[in-house]
Amino acid sequence: MPHRQRPFIQQFYPDDHAWCYGCGRLNDQGLHLESAWEGDEVVARVTPRPEHMSIPGYVYGGLIAALIDCHAMATAAAHADRLAGRHLGDGEVPRYVTAALTVDYLHPTPLGNELVLRARVREAGRRKLVVEVALECAGRETARGDVVAVPIPEGMLAPRT
Amino acid sequence: MPHRQRPFIQQFYPDDHAWCYGCGRLNDQGLHLESAWEGDEVVARVTPRPEHMSIPGYVYGGLIAALIDCHAMATAAAHADRLAGRHLGDGEVPRYVTAALTVDYLHPTPLGNELVLRARVREAGRRKLVVEVALECAGRETARGDVVAVPIPEGMLAPRT
Repeated sequence: MPHRQRPFIQQFYPDDHAWCYGCGRLNDQGLHLESAWEGDEVVARVTPRPEHMSIPGYVYGGLIAALIDCHAMATAAAHADRLAGRHLGDGEVPRYVTAALTVDYLHPTPLGNELVLRARVREAGRRKLVVEVALECAGRETARGDVVAVPIPEGMLAPRT
Repeated sequence: MPHRQRPFIQQFYPDDHAWCYGCGRLNDQGLHLESAWEGDEVVARVTPRPEHMSIPGYVYGGLIAALIDCHAMATAAAHADRLAGRHLGDGEVPRYVTAALTVDYLHPTPLGNELVLRARVREAGRRKLVVEVALECAGRETARGDVVAVPIPEGMLAPRT
């Protein structure tokens, strides 16, 4: 489903945080979203599978929300990595989780097209990052997301192997 | 994945609108969410599959958003059906689509539990309905959704068979 790009941000998630259904490279049954820097934006390209429909012919809103969510977390991680003076690939990136997600469905999103997600960090607090995501389909912005990312809480950390 | 209840609202979606990946009874590969009236609330019960993880041990936020989305659309449909003086099962229910979705992730949602979604219509305009959804896991509210539903636009209507 994703269009492979290298290097992609999720490649540098620690192994024990790389199982997400939406973007984990180790989740065999997942969607394998891959997000990469393009200048100051983080971009991902995905073609939904035929079964990812809502009304026949249109992409299911739950998939759009899921892609926006995972893409925003990758954007937060890459932003924090850059802020720390590192370059993507220097090592693992920090893992963020979603505190809040808002998606505006501006237009129906036709199935059978590549979707392009473009994101940037709009607000950066001491802990919290607000990421805005535009989802384009066939050159038109069909959905827009606003996502609050926070560093993964201690309680969710799995023991490192 | 869903815990079967009868009658459920999605049972009464017209056949050509019953293909949604989240809740379409005709989508073989989908999640088959089933939402039913319980008094004045609309309730659904779902146990996520093991692969629906974010961080290992926790439910993926994209699934939570998707379930809230589909459950809210069923709630809107059932509400409109009641407002029209009908009882669920009198015939097809009207089909709503999502204009905007907000999800607050209040706490991590542990995998391996039944999730309970409870929804009601909070605001009803002439066209737009605002649905609030609480998602509970092991007796605790771990996510909350606020969803704007509108009747399916003419342009998305498939020809009736």
